[in-house]
Amino acid sequence: MPLLVVGSTAFDSIETPYGKEVDCLGGSAVYCSLAASLFTEPRLVSVVGKDFPKASRDLLATKKVRLEGLEEAAGKTFRWSGRYSADMNSRETLSVELNTFGDFRPKIPKQFNDSAFVFLANGSPETQASALEQVSDPTFVVADTMDLWIETKKDALLDLLRVVDGVILNDQEIKMLTGENNLIRAGRKALSIGPKLVILKKGEHGCFLFSNFFHHALPAYPTEHVVDPTGAGDSFAGGFMGFLAECDSLSIWNLKRAIAYGTVTASITVEGFGVRAIAEATRERVERRYQELIQFIAM
Amino acid sequence: MPLLVVGSTAFDSIETPYGKEVDCLGGSAVYCSLAASLFTEPRLVSVVGKDFPKASRDLLATKKVRLEGLEEAAGKTFRWSGRYSADMNSRETLSVELNTFGDFRPKIPKQFNDSAFVFLANGSPETQASALEQVSDPTFVVADTMDLWIETKKDALLDLLRVVDGVILNDQEIKMLTGENNLIRAGRKALSIGPKLVILKKGEHGCFLFSNFFHHALPAYPTEHVVDPTGAGDSFAGGFMGFLAECDSLSIWNLKRAIAYGTVTASITVEGFGVRAIAEATRERVERRYQELIQFIAM
Repeated sequence: MPLLVVGSTAFDSIETPYGKEVDCLGGSAVYCSLAASLFTEPRLVSVVGKDFPKASRDLLATKKVRLEGLEEAAGKTFRWSGRYSADMNSRETLSVELNTFGDFRPKIPKQFNDSAFVFLANGSPETQASALEQVSDPTFVVADTMDLWIETKKDALLDLLRVVDGVILNDQEIKMLTGENNLIRAGRKALSIGPKLVILKKGEHGCFLFSNFFHHALPAYPTEHVVDPTGAGDSFAGGFMGFLAECDSLSIWNLKRAIAYGTVTASITVEGFGVRAIAEATRERVERRYQELIQFIAM
Repeated sequence: MPLLVVGSTAFDSIETPYGKEVDCLGGSAVYCSLAASLFTEPRLVSVVGKDFPKASRDLLATKKVRLEGLEEAAGKTFRWSGRYSADMNSRETLSVELNTFGDFRPKIPKQFNDSAFVFLANGSPETQASALEQVSDPTFVVADTMDLWIETKKDALLDLLRVVDGVILNDQEIKMLTGENNLIRAGRKALSIGPKLVILKKGEHGCFLFSNFFHHALPAYPTEHVVDPTGAGDSFAGGFMGFLAECDSLSIWNLKRAIAYGTVTASITVEGFGVRAIAEATRERVERRYQELIQFIAM
């Protein structure tokens, strides 16, 4: 099945201990779509400015990302710049220019209304909800969010979490959302808000998958060459959702495999600046790395 | 096979968000021995003062910890006090009185010379080496250490790591020892110093096991009720070494099982103040929790 992805398209200027690159193609929906494209057809719904180059559009099209929902508005494309710490476990935002993304009102093209699998990348909960309302009868909807929305739009976020199937959070976000420091208790509390699945990303420490029926832990792929962590979370979401959309099955076994595929696509993304590594990845490379991950955790 | 455990015996005064307890029985060798006692006969080599009460000695004897190597010296028993942060991920040492432990020169009783399995709990690398020299032909020796020795006695520590079979480090220690921020690269570099096994403890994020033949990752047991983290690392070591001594086999399969048992004994320890929870644990409880851990990680 195809995967509807709603979120940002951006140009990022990134500084890490491995170098500095300016105006790399990025944005949550782009990372997610590129990772998902390894498994299924991503339907991108996003907005760019008049400055969005044909080369970036072509890159996405080459990866079979459907672009009918990529709106081109007057003004410039969203721009972000940031700098990572020496151990790359934290980053500082140097500048944000929302540009056209500041007024993003997602319009789901008619031919995408029937999407069964939907990923609402990070955005204001109202924007996420308005996108979701335009999908007629989705099977599986997962939302991402961030500290800003937990702080400033908590009620709208809680409303959204009651209608989606799953939420993806990192450890800081889940602590902030639930007020629990213990991650297992935080997972249970997040489930009690409403979503059937809570996916907790812990970066280099792997992830947890919580449901009311089972809890599952998966270590991260043992990456030795992290060049640029930007987009790791969105690539995780893309691998996770893309694999499930490909399977068109939400069995416990497939959910566990899906977070392993998400782990793999995230591990590929961080090995290059911007989207370079994930855009160059092949399904064969994904499968090889998936087997390596399974070996790494096998008892 | 029995397990020789060389390290400290102490009285700890501990403050956590769950309460405060004064003069709890503790010390690296005590936590390790109590955890190991769930699997095999621990042979404790340590030192206490004249103030060490019969009740503590009786507790250890009840758990079948052999006490011929527990020296009683003039003066008082080692005392430590500390306070944990609200999320219990960091702690502040409030006071340290080394007392009799300050002059600890481990003397391995003759009847323990033949120990095949040896755990050198945290101590100065010279003290650890002098204990090891007194064991005639050990099969499997693992050493613990800490930031203090990496900073102040690095050469002696490197000498020790060349002659032991394994080393247990936490994430900060391995970064400090190897100068590598990436934990997988740090693991490889630690192996290149000499030990055949590097066990990397990451607290709530689980652990890694590195060897030149395989790398393995294991998430932590999903503990929801951490009351006092003191002794978690030494209890991990006790479960790990105790299980291997019981098996008397160092197959890859047993090494992987051993870190799972170490994970389980650590998870029990943190559910009570001081040694209370680990001293009350039964093998049946350990096995139940081992199965829960296996379920938690099973694909």
